[in-house]
Amino acid sequence: MRHMADRYFDDFAVGDTFETATVVVTAEDISDFARRFDPQPWHLDLATAAASPFGGLAASGWHTTALTMRLIVDSGFLRATGILGLGVDDLRWLKPVRPGDTLRVRGEVLFLDPPIGGKRTGIMRVQLTTIDQHDEAVQREVAILYVPRRAHRSTT
Amino acid sequence: MRHMADRYFDDFAVGDTFETATVVVTAEDISDFARRFDPQPWHLDLATAAASPFGGLAASGWHTTALTMRLIVDSGFLRATGILGLGVDDLRWLKPVRPGDTLRVRGEVLFLDPPIGGKRTGIMRVQLTTIDQHDEAVQREVAILYVPRRAHRSTT
Repeated sequence: MRHMADRYFDDFAVGDTFETATVVVTAEDISDFARRFDPQPWHLDLATAAASPFGGLAASGWHTTALTMRLIVDSGFLRATGILGLGVDDLRWLKPVRPGDTLRVRGEVLFLDPPIGGKRTGIMRVQLTTIDQHDEAVQREVAILYVPRRAHRSTT
Repeated sequence: MRHMADRYFDDFAVGDTFETATVVVTAEDISDFARRFDPQPWHLDLATAAASPFGGLAASGWHTTALTMRLIVDSGFLRATGILGLGVDDLRWLKPVRPGDTLRVRGEVLFLDPPIGGKRTGIMRVQLTTIDQHDEAVQREVAILYVPRRAHRSTT
């Protein structure tokens, strides 16, 4: 099997799966992200968060998407081509992310739309499920990525 | 018209629109976000980015989603109830965000699913279009939000 970092469009098949390393989310990470991008009480401060709909500090959903991206980049998935996103479908936050949670991402290739008309770049749909230390999904999304074919490929 | 910050599920109608204040995105903002969450060359360094598919430094798409959230939170949209996201559909990055761009968000309520069975919370789908200083859309998404009804509402 090829090293994941060397893979181009040609090297994937529908059903391929992978899993990333893990990241631990701290209370400081959660409130630091929230101060910049989502300053609502349940993301900012333990005491205020306790009386909120979340019943305690929880990460912004956008923090979870950003951490998911970091885990995917660090995994080497598509390192050769870059991870170039056209968009995301069906993003759902399934369970609050709490201080001390350990997250990792499972990926599964759902769909491959080959390059046409002499183009070099195809489109991949990959389902990314972000999972906590209890093996429970905290987030799910379908990323839509531009993925180039291998250059100078022999066609014979 | 009610102040935006005082609005509950009862106070919205399909077709309601709003617009946020603006934020200027700097090269430092772009590379700072990228170092934490999306360390790919076209988000990190001007010189390296010039030779990339983007032809210059561009913000991570996840940076744009996070800035969009910040603009929405600061606008006071749903301040009374909080912005509680179930998920996002149809997120698309339409145009690279460059250093010096000024972003704002236009919102339009697409769909309101009222609370049923004695529940207090309905679901709103709101299209959020993030626009640059040229009035061009850089990102579009449909946010799916839990929105509580006004408490102690007279039913007579």
